[in-house]
Amino acid sequence: MQKNENEILVGKKPIVKYVFAVLTQLTNGEKEIHVKARGKNISRAVDVVEIVRRKHLQNLKVKDIKIGTEERENQGKKVNVSTIDIVLAV
Amino acid sequence: MQKNENEILVGKKPIVKYVFAVLTQLTNGEKEIHVKARGKNISRAVDVVEIVRRKHLQNLKVKDIKIGTEERENQGKKVNVSTIDIVLAV
Repeated sequence: MQKNENEILVGKKPIVKYVFAVLTQLTNGEKEIHVKARGKNISRAVDVVEIVRRKHLQNLKVKDIKIGTEERENQGKKVNVSTIDIVLAV
Repeated sequence: MQKNENEILVGKKPIVKYVFAVLTQLTNGEKEIHVKARGKNISRAVDVVEIVRRKHLQNLKVKDIKIGTEERENQGKKVNVSTIDIVLAV
């Protein structure tokens, strides 16, 4: 899962930081944004999108949601981690 | 979010229990199953679906994924909780 220009990878920072990142990218003219996350942060990615939609941009559309699995290495051991990619469009 | 016949609400039990529930419902002839979760359990719902798809039923399709917000009461206070509804189809 690579991070491109119009992507926001949701991690452990406060939710409001990611909400702000989405709003900033949209303000900068992005028409489509991918909100991505792995593992336990998947729930937080959904929180980010829901907060943006309810509190800030009611007309923002969830264009697509993809889920998948990524193989990652953790202390030399290969583990499977679930991923989510939520595509938002204005 | 109500629980119907073809719905599995993912909570705090071991992931394998929900995987088993999905497989059981499909074996019983269900053509479409909703895997649902709220809040932090959203990540676990994605794990359930990914494990079923990778380890058990490669031909299982994710037909639709919906996210939303539900208002719940927590110690007398109204809080917003994110939800997910993953629709699986054989």
